[in-house]
Amino acid sequence: MAKLTSRAEDYSKWYNELVVKANLAENSGVRGCMVIKPYGYAIWEKIQAELDKRFKETGHQNAYFPIFVPRSYFEAEEKNAEGFAKECAVVTHYRLKNDESTPGKLMVDPEAKLEEELIVRPTSEAIIWSTYKNWIQSYRDLPILINQWANVVRWEMRTRLFLRTTEFLWQEGHTAHATKEEAISESRQMLDVYTEVVENHMAIPVVRGCKTPSERFAGAEETYTIEAMMQDGKALQAGTSHFLGQNFAKAFDVKFTTNEGKQDYVWATSWGVSTRLMGALIMTHSDDYGLVLPPKIAPIQVVIVPIFRSEEQLIQVSEVANRIKNELHSIGISVKFDDDEKTKPGWKFAEYELKGVPVRIAIGPKDLENNQVEIARRDTLEKSTIPMDGISSYVENLLVDIQENLFTKANEYRDSHITEVTSYEEFKELIETKGGFFSALWDGTEETEEAIKNETKATIRCIPLDYETPTEGVDFYSGKPAKFRVLYAKAY
Amino acid sequence: MAKLTSRAEDYSKWYNELVVKANLAENSGVRGCMVIKPYGYAIWEKIQAELDKRFKETGHQNAYFPIFVPRSYFEAEEKNAEGFAKECAVVTHYRLKNDESTPGKLMVDPEAKLEEELIVRPTSEAIIWSTYKNWIQSYRDLPILINQWANVVRWEMRTRLFLRTTEFLWQEGHTAHATKEEAISESRQMLDVYTEVVENHMAIPVVRGCKTPSERFAGAEETYTIEAMMQDGKALQAGTSHFLGQNFAKAFDVKFTTNEGKQDYVWATSWGVSTRLMGALIMTHSDDYGLVLPPKIAPIQVVIVPIFRSEEQLIQVSEVANRIKNELHSIGISVKFDDDEKTKPGWKFAEYELKGVPVRIAIGPKDLENNQVEIARRDTLEKSTIPMDGISSYVENLLVDIQENLFTKANEYRDSHITEVTSYEEFKELIETKGGFFSALWDGTEETEEAIKNETKATIRCIPLDYETPTEGVDFYSGKPAKFRVLYAKAY
Repeated sequence: MAKLTSRAEDYSKWYNELVVKANLAENSGVRGCMVIKPYGYAIWEKIQAELDKRFKETGHQNAYFPIFVPRSYFEAEEKNAEGFAKECAVVTHYRLKNDESTPGKLMVDPEAKLEEELIVRPTSEAIIWSTYKNWIQSYRDLPILINQWANVVRWEMRTRLFLRTTEFLWQEGHTAHATKEEAISESRQMLDVYTEVVENHMAIPVVRGCKTPSERFAGAEETYTIEAMMQDGKALQAGTSHFLGQNFAKAFDVKFTTNEGKQDYVWATSWGVSTRLMGALIMTHSDDYGLVLPPKIAPIQVVIVPIFRSEEQLIQVSEVANRIKNELHSIGISVKFDDDEKTKPGWKFAEYELKGVPVRIAIGPKDLENNQVEIARRDTLEKSTIPMDGISSYVENLLVDIQENLFTKANEYRDSHITEVTSYEEFKELIETKGGFFSALWDGTEETEEAIKNETKATIRCIPLDYETPTEGVDFYSGKPAKFRVLYAKAY
Repeated sequence: MAKLTSRAEDYSKWYNELVVKANLAENSGVRGCMVIKPYGYAIWEKIQAELDKRFKETGHQNAYFPIFVPRSYFEAEEKNAEGFAKECAVVTHYRLKNDESTPGKLMVDPEAKLEEELIVRPTSEAIIWSTYKNWIQSYRDLPILINQWANVVRWEMRTRLFLRTTEFLWQEGHTAHATKEEAISESRQMLDVYTEVVENHMAIPVVRGCKTPSERFAGAEETYTIEAMMQDGKALQAGTSHFLGQNFAKAFDVKFTTNEGKQDYVWATSWGVSTRLMGALIMTHSDDYGLVLPPKIAPIQVVIVPIFRSEEQLIQVSEVANRIKNELHSIGISVKFDDDEKTKPGWKFAEYELKGVPVRIAIGPKDLENNQVEIARRDTLEKSTIPMDGISSYVENLLVDIQENLFTKANEYRDSHITEVTSYEEFKELIETKGGFFSALWDGTEETEEAIKNETKATIRCIPLDYETPTEGVDFYSGKPAKFRVLYAKAY
């Protein structure tokens, strides 16, 4: 197996190679669309399960809405339409026919042209609010708390596996409320849910904040975001939750009778995370040997590799390996015993390192004699010899330890790469040399935001929720009085 | 709540009303596409979970392939292309632009025309086999056992909720094998998995068989099917599993090195069930009061309805109801305690009958005095008074009983509606008066099959696996020597 390009050499190349070599995903023959391979999909399923559980615990139900959005629905909310019109896949016909000029070839049947084009959903607000209109008459019909697991299509010009693909998988929550306060509280609650899963299960520390008006979701009044820092110092928007105000209710004329008998437009939220999280996961923890997975979302948490020189040794080792496997299974740990005889232990070690399996147990004849096993942890690559007795509680604790260590390490890296700056010159230099997030005062104008973006490629990632609104000080670029303390970074 | 149209009055109308009133699904504003509402989706999730578990137990892994199939891929397997070309959604453009003639309107941007059209997948053999080509070199790479949960689009002209919709949800398994025998065995195994879930969880008895050549999946060498009988005597194809031979391997040039070092084309299967199963479920068990759900796939297995005339009574009843709820929860039964004060018990009774909740427990002040509850089972609508003590084991057994009863009832109905016929005249009369499945000898020709279909609208549903191949006798239509014993029926 050829080694990965190292991160120091070329971070971007390392990422691309890792995604393919660890069997997470690959480019398909369809422009910008990826194939999510079984190992990658298994990780996604783990992430899905954690999210889905929490959506349901917070009162949401899953449902499914059509993949197609008729053009006229799409046009209804102007900003949303404007935001997505430039990058959408459009269905114009519903039939192919034989191309008479070329045997075996098909062509669009001009007689099967749609009267109204259908957009393959880039997001579902339009189709969902056209449906909610029929579901909502009175405050008794509210709130509506619905989530959808779906595929969406955005015609991106430059794509990268998981990070930016023409088609991607995501969940999109769409809720309807009687009051503004309730809708805002819902959008904040879902940001909490995302934070919980991303930090405590994926071990990715995030900064929680509001997007600036120019970076908001098209059609939102407020976009909350969780921003993660990758190993190269760049930011990755890991999830967003939008307070949509009454924009979609107005666009689709969704009114309700309040409990005082008045008519009002319904308040809305939407929130989503996508397979982009896979990119965040990879670029937060992995190293030059391959993927590093937090135990809580690793499809295989422990791999057992037998060391043997004869069939007899394999039988003896297998007996013990299977016993350990069953013991670990019984306490809810997922274990693979790889007794494939066609590949050597060294090859297997490299393979499971590449795949990020958190714990590797190696057992050979000598270990049997000494009633011990060799345990290697993927996060630190440390090996130790551990007595066979009490092995399952040892592994159980080790998995907890690895989970914590990954978060701590990522958090320390992140914190050490948040730099407070007051000088724009310093900022321009440091963003090239050190990278990371830069805390700075902002005058609140789009002009400043835009100018800095053009000069440095850094954007305001968010106005962090736990930053105090400045009462004094000036914007480091414009010199105007500061309105917010924000985080700047280059971003994926 | 207005009553449902009765089944006797208009079966088709009853079905449509039930799907909407029980909050399972509704038509969307997009032609032929449905919205699957939370209650319907929750049932689908239960079915999905049972299937997914068994797919994994039989060694399959989930993955995800692009929704778009480039036209040239689609053309590669000729029969498959021919089968789906007439009903596919075609993406021709990747951008909309402002319609200068009408402010606020958008139009397809003629400058954003795709060089090659993309088909929204009607099924994924083409896109998947174009991918497998790169995954398979040697027999060591086989088998590939992959499943995908996805949406697909087939441009159906006449649509009905769940039964036939332009977009539907399904799973599609796609496997690759080194030998013909292994591929056939895989396709048979998956038919077994479908049978198990459909019969033992959905309580729908099925006939297992082979499709005739003219009814095979486009591109298959053999299509195995499970056929269920609806209450109106019509058949519903509930799932299919295809042995694809080497057709797709040849179309996409997927060869492998055998363990003898030779080159051979790979053998394939594909298999799928869809949201159509929801239609089968509804039309197998439900009655004039609404949905009837088998306990194993009911999102709510037990509903507790409090009877009260005062706040104090509600408090007393609630205490007991919550105790029962927790008890049932602790043994894995899903319970809803509906203590909504705005609706009356009678309304709730009707509502949960409509929604098919298998068991209803009513508790009032008198029940508290007598240390008893009233239990109603949805399948038979019988009510009984049951002592409070031992209530959870009573309910646990009752759920098992209901599950069995539903299957038995459906099975008896089905068996009493399979008629063996030797006279074509008798068949023509009975299929109109009695309906159901008709066992008859067939000469094996498409001419006979086609003629009968044209005259009676009945098709050969399958050649049942457990019917013996006839050694004598003649086709009841053509009088030619019989080759198979088959089942005829009108079908959804």
